[in-house]
Amino acid sequence: MSAVTAQERNGLEALSPGATALLRTLDATFEGWGTATGAAPMIMPPLLPVASLAKLDFYDNFPHQAMLACALDLDRRDATPGARPSVFAPGVLEPAALGLPSAACFAVYLYHEGARLAGDTAVTVLGRCFRREEFYEGLSRLLGFHMREVVALGSREFAQAHLDRFAERIAAFGAALGLPMRKEAASDPFYDRGGQRALLQRLSPVKYEFLVDDLAIASVNVHRNFFGERCDIRLDATGEPVFTSCVAFGLERWLSVLLPRHGTWEAAVEAVLRAAGEVAGTGAIADGGSR
Amino acid sequence: MSAVTAQERNGLEALSPGATALLRTLDATFEGWGTATGAAPMIMPPLLPVASLAKLDFYDNFPHQAMLACALDLDRRDATPGARPSVFAPGVLEPAALGLPSAACFAVYLYHEGARLAGDTAVTVLGRCFRREEFYEGLSRLLGFHMREVVALGSREFAQAHLDRFAERIAAFGAALGLPMRKEAASDPFYDRGGQRALLQRLSPVKYEFLVDDLAIASVNVHRNFFGERCDIRLDATGEPVFTSCVAFGLERWLSVLLPRHGTWEAAVEAVLRAAGEVAGTGAIADGGSR
Repeated sequence: MSAVTAQERNGLEALSPGATALLRTLDATFEGWGTATGAAPMIMPPLLPVASLAKLDFYDNFPHQAMLACALDLDRRDATPGARPSVFAPGVLEPAALGLPSAACFAVYLYHEGARLAGDTAVTVLGRCFRREEFYEGLSRLLGFHMREVVALGSREFAQAHLDRFAERIAAFGAALGLPMRKEAASDPFYDRGGQRALLQRLSPVKYEFLVDDLAIASVNVHRNFFGERCDIRLDATGEPVFTSCVAFGLERWLSVLLPRHGTWEAAVEAVLRAAGEVAGTGAIADGGSR
Repeated sequence: MSAVTAQERNGLEALSPGATALLRTLDATFEGWGTATGAAPMIMPPLLPVASLAKLDFYDNFPHQAMLACALDLDRRDATPGARPSVFAPGVLEPAALGLPSAACFAVYLYHEGARLAGDTAVTVLGRCFRREEFYEGLSRLLGFHMREVVALGSREFAQAHLDRFAERIAAFGAALGLPMRKEAASDPFYDRGGQRALLQRLSPVKYEFLVDDLAIASVNVHRNFFGERCDIRLDATGEPVFTSCVAFGLERWLSVLLPRHGTWEAAVEAVLRAAGEVAGTGAIADGGSR
């Protein structure tokens, strides 16, 4: 509305009513794929303890992306009425014990910390996620964005079947939308560390991205038992750490690829609804079920 | 899931599938009241510039509640692999130029900064809001929570009619739910400053809260032309700063009053749907329309 550039908006964008409708239509579609396989919709905390993220190696692997949340140190800030600061220096901030999540699934593993699962479990969440970047670009590279995830926790087979099912569905949906989408193996700083994990990653990729115009709009990720071990999440029957996998959708990125192809938000909403209907009957999701 | 207390969770709660369903049912109800009066659903940025919040006197009026977002200073942090910090000292944080919003409507006024409105305008948003408190308590006092707001911008009469309409609807909804809800005038640090505003507030309260068991679960707020002036939002026809008002629902607080009364999340969802249906035909909302 006001005359500031994308860069001045610091990677933070408001969504118009039309863009909002498209984001919500996409989100309902992806969530519906999750619930159709038995995933439970939940809402996770919007901030996570630094100690918890550190336990997941987050600050080793993604320190450049990290955003922290902290309070003002009321004794040290300049409290001159009407001072109108544009920035608070670190010296007037309290220590930061909480982080803004960079992915929606971290909170799911942390929520299950110490759990003994009765069986294979799936959860779907919409997270507001934050990644500090060198530069920001429209809706395709944001500081703050929405990520819908469907997360599987359970046996190795369950975690893998979850990904296979969703990879098939994403490809079918992209085709129904006429998107020139390709699936590519990607590297992820997680699990790269240490010889054995690095070797395993070369033998069997842990992350595939779905790209349109070199922009990853969805990914499927298998973590083996990394989060099961770090968060002590075990299958009750075996006592073994769970295997986990997640499917992630960067919703604003879908908006950025769909708007230019359909001209208006309304046309894009119609196209998404039509494509969702087309793939709904194809069985990739309907034959699954985690509970 | 894990054995931490509410206090250890720092005012950050995950919502179970049942709680999630109730929150979404409530949110859809309140949003529906908004769209029925012509409010446009939008999504606002999850962080706001410190400079913008300062312009709204936020750091003068609510410094104790303020939460800031900042990045890690990569040159100064301890990058020892596996160090696993539980907190980052201010010395390793970059300056904070962004704040976490404490209310959903701030972003709406800032979005309209410099706008010349063709007519009375209403917007409805769901915000994830943050308030640092001395202590936290279950779902009734959280650091991070959901706030649904319906915001009116336009003539003085439009802003007032917006509140009257919603106050009536909230009272009817509370009655249909059997909630012992009372409406009380409340003070708000905004607009208390300066003789004329303080006088006006005594003559005519600017904020009413709807309380259940002393917990405010909704409020209606009139800001006169404060945000219109500060954000330079004007009616195109007159060139005058808009008057604004907002209706706010603290969704987790509704959960905290509904669960004990209905025993299960499922029963509470049914009660909300029934009550929403009962008040839908009463006309308080249906006869309005901002566009």
